[in-house]
Amino acid sequence: MSEVAEVLTGEAILVATEEVLRRYGPAKATVVDVAKALGVSHGSVYRHFPTKAALREAVTRRWLDVVHAEFEAIVEQEGTAAERLRVWLQALFDKKRRSHLEEPELFENFQVLVKESASIPEYHVRHMVGILTRIIRAGVETQEFVTDDVDVTAQAVWDATDKFHHPSHAREWGNPHIQAEFDAVVSLVVAGLRYNRSPSATGDA
Amino acid sequence: MSEVAEVLTGEAILVATEEVLRRYGPAKATVVDVAKALGVSHGSVYRHFPTKAALREAVTRRWLDVVHAEFEAIVEQEGTAAERLRVWLQALFDKKRRSHLEEPELFENFQVLVKESASIPEYHVRHMVGILTRIIRAGVETQEFVTDDVDVTAQAVWDATDKFHHPSHAREWGNPHIQAEFDAVVSLVVAGLRYNRSPSATGDA
Repeated sequence: MSEVAEVLTGEAILVATEEVLRRYGPAKATVVDVAKALGVSHGSVYRHFPTKAALREAVTRRWLDVVHAEFEAIVEQEGTAAERLRVWLQALFDKKRRSHLEEPELFENFQVLVKESASIPEYHVRHMVGILTRIIRAGVETQEFVTDDVDVTAQAVWDATDKFHHPSHAREWGNPHIQAEFDAVVSLVVAGLRYNRSPSATGDA
Repeated sequence: MSEVAEVLTGEAILVATEEVLRRYGPAKATVVDVAKALGVSHGSVYRHFPTKAALREAVTRRWLDVVHAEFEAIVEQEGTAAERLRVWLQALFDKKRRSHLEEPELFENFQVLVKESASIPEYHVRHMVGILTRIIRAGVETQEFVTDDVDVTAQAVWDATDKFHHPSHAREWGNPHIQAEFDAVVSLVVAGLRYNRSPSATGDA
């Protein structure tokens, strides 16, 4: 067993932990379960991850990084900035909705893990808004979109569409009108991106 | 006591029930508490409201009607449609945020009551979106706004701003950047209202 422990990598622990979390759920999964799955002592796991919380956070970040890579790839599509934005937001909505409706337990388990550390939701939102920033900046460069602050506007697009990606709205995603509501919000947002000035520039209250 | 019961009105029962709900909370309040507060038998209460659920739903609707009247009144302000929309959305956000931050227990209790019947959230949203429809229609009439479907667009404005009024986002309302995020979303929405065409009309995907 000491031979196995010597070649134990952080990556192998993360893979085993993800599997243990899937099997037992976040409420029941323990470091001992992870060690058992790997055939090592729990001390070997703690040499790589000082606490159970650190191990779980590492698993969640690793899983989110896969999601981020997937949504980075969608940006590389052909089309106008408006088309790419719509495809990107639709892909996000579809992924979340499918996960919630088809694998509700797994969806719920990931929500529990994401909320365990305050830094994780922030890490995820910063990354996703960063992708939106790039789509919007490309649209400004081709004069398709107008905005005087790409970062602020990207956050506004994220916030304005949160009914279709924020997990607290998951129960609404089975609603028969939800796709029509998504289309209407995205149309409004895209129209806004074509004509967005700061409140002071347009004389709004 | 039978003399009191004879003059007992539905309105008096609703006032007493609201007071009982405030004092004991929705989890503990009973019809017997309401009857005691009025000095009548619980049978007298049931003659007006056939079930505890019916009584609670009537109290919640009565309370929401007061809120609706308040937000009807805000529509009658001076200004452009964009200014009136901004003032209205800000008033809604301020009311919800203040309620959540300053009276968290009362806020929580109202959420419990609102969610008890599926028809209540729908009743509230339909009313609030109806007010938005009137603001947007006025803007279309003065050619300040452009949209080919006022009802769909009003629902989209409601959905796009839900981070700032949907109770599931209440925990975010104490965030120091929340007012800036609200301003950015409302600016984007107002810009969208000035240039909103259906996807087919603009050639969006």
